[in-house]
Amino acid sequence: MNLRFTKMHGLGNDFVVIDAVNQRVALNPDQVRHLADRHRGIGCDQLLLVEPATDPAADFRYRIYNADGGEVEQCGNGARCFMRFVHDQGLTAKRALTVQTLAGPIALRLEDDGQVTVDMGPPRLEPAAIPFQAPARAPVYSLEVEGQEYTIGALSMGNPHAVLTVEDIDRAPVATLGPRIEHHPRFPNRVNVGFMQIDAPDHIHLRVFERGVGETRACGTGACAAAVAGRLQGRLDARVRVSLPGGDLVISWSGEDASVFMTGPAVSVFEGTLQL
Amino acid sequence: MNLRFTKMHGLGNDFVVIDAVNQRVALNPDQVRHLADRHRGIGCDQLLLVEPATDPAADFRYRIYNADGGEVEQCGNGARCFMRFVHDQGLTAKRALTVQTLAGPIALRLEDDGQVTVDMGPPRLEPAAIPFQAPARAPVYSLEVEGQEYTIGALSMGNPHAVLTVEDIDRAPVATLGPRIEHHPRFPNRVNVGFMQIDAPDHIHLRVFERGVGETRACGTGACAAAVAGRLQGRLDARVRVSLPGGDLVISWSGEDASVFMTGPAVSVFEGTLQL
Repeated sequence: MNLRFTKMHGLGNDFVVIDAVNQRVALNPDQVRHLADRHRGIGCDQLLLVEPATDPAADFRYRIYNADGGEVEQCGNGARCFMRFVHDQGLTAKRALTVQTLAGPIALRLEDDGQVTVDMGPPRLEPAAIPFQAPARAPVYSLEVEGQEYTIGALSMGNPHAVLTVEDIDRAPVATLGPRIEHHPRFPNRVNVGFMQIDAPDHIHLRVFERGVGETRACGTGACAAAVAGRLQGRLDARVRVSLPGGDLVISWSGEDASVFMTGPAVSVFEGTLQL
Repeated sequence: MNLRFTKMHGLGNDFVVIDAVNQRVALNPDQVRHLADRHRGIGCDQLLLVEPATDPAADFRYRIYNADGGEVEQCGNGARCFMRFVHDQGLTAKRALTVQTLAGPIALRLEDDGQVTVDMGPPRLEPAAIPFQAPARAPVYSLEVEGQEYTIGALSMGNPHAVLTVEDIDRAPVATLGPRIEHHPRFPNRVNVGFMQIDAPDHIHLRVFERGVGETRACGTGACAAAVAGRLQGRLDARVRVSLPGGDLVISWSGEDASVFMTGPAVSVFEGTLQL
């Protein structure tokens, strides 16, 4: 078959996006691995398949596949690319969508400047929900790592996050302290570790050591977790610009049971056609 | 401008190939770096620009740019992709072409099975031409590395090569001995280092430690150098299949002043359009 696709990225996290509304597309894991191969295929971190909704309350369904061929649940950078794609390709004229994903329905909004806002859901703050071993919920916790005490925030954005505040983001011990906290026994499912430098109540710099991956250039849930942790500690506003190595996101959170909203760019790089 | 391109590879060495005969294309180094970026651009090892010939004796001219934006002289994998490109795109119906490159004219032939043969020119065997410090030309030389003697072949295919024979290609000390020979004082311009396992007079396995790069999956000049070195030592036929980690090449050399011919595949992966 002749497969049409669009190559996109959100802060450098890149996607092959395929319209499976107007094309009949069924990909097996071998084909996903081939398409994701950066030398012999198209090349991407993840492949995103846009399908008609099966739930009448949703506008579309999308599925995300990792480069290894496995299906994954969610990805904030991918959600932004999805929104731009369906709009740019004329699959919808609506600027606010509800979309089915493996992780449940998500709400997306295309902003006037072309950026996309994703409803990331409310944070989960109870230690047992993170999961994190602590006697009670608190804005900060003390964590001992190899005899030294660190002050961290801890919460879940669907995945567990620990957030540390540092004076100098460029000198943050991401590669050394990151894996030690990731594997700390008080985080039984391991944890993503964010290092944030607070520049102002509405601006932070952030580097994230992702669980099982290492330092990445643009972790959307990590940006949400840092904004929430800083807000709970009374150091950040409800709306914060988060400067990641890959670029900027804006995170908004009005507190407690409210959803966290993430706004950021999505870029179409090129259109392609491939014989599959 | 709306740039049309084809993504291709030869044994996994991948290229963005651009028709600059029918499109007006002038790329600055920033644009080359952007197109070669695997996350925010198209992604490739090298970019190949196909232009009309300026010399009436040639059919085309092509230019190769590295991912860092700099122009480079030659590349066997790229030459095969060039030939397939001009034929598949209908830029010529000729199956034998002479092409202008920065390294001078090269001759290419499209075989009946779709593989491409490249005239790689004659090897240079005199030590001074390699350059290699040795009293006289010989089929093998003894090279001392950290107190141990190794038997090597040495020659130039436009770039310097040392070739060692090993019993077991999987256990060849490419990562450890490769850089020590690369920087050996008897090779004043450093050297590419090939490790070959002779399976039969017409078949070898080969791994190459490329000068300044490390081990690569498909070094065309390395395959030529190994076939020539083995032939000079009386261990290989005039026509040898060379199995590299990225796939197979067939190398033919009738001896002494004759050209070395390299035959191998070139694959078109997809067609694309990008706003530049």
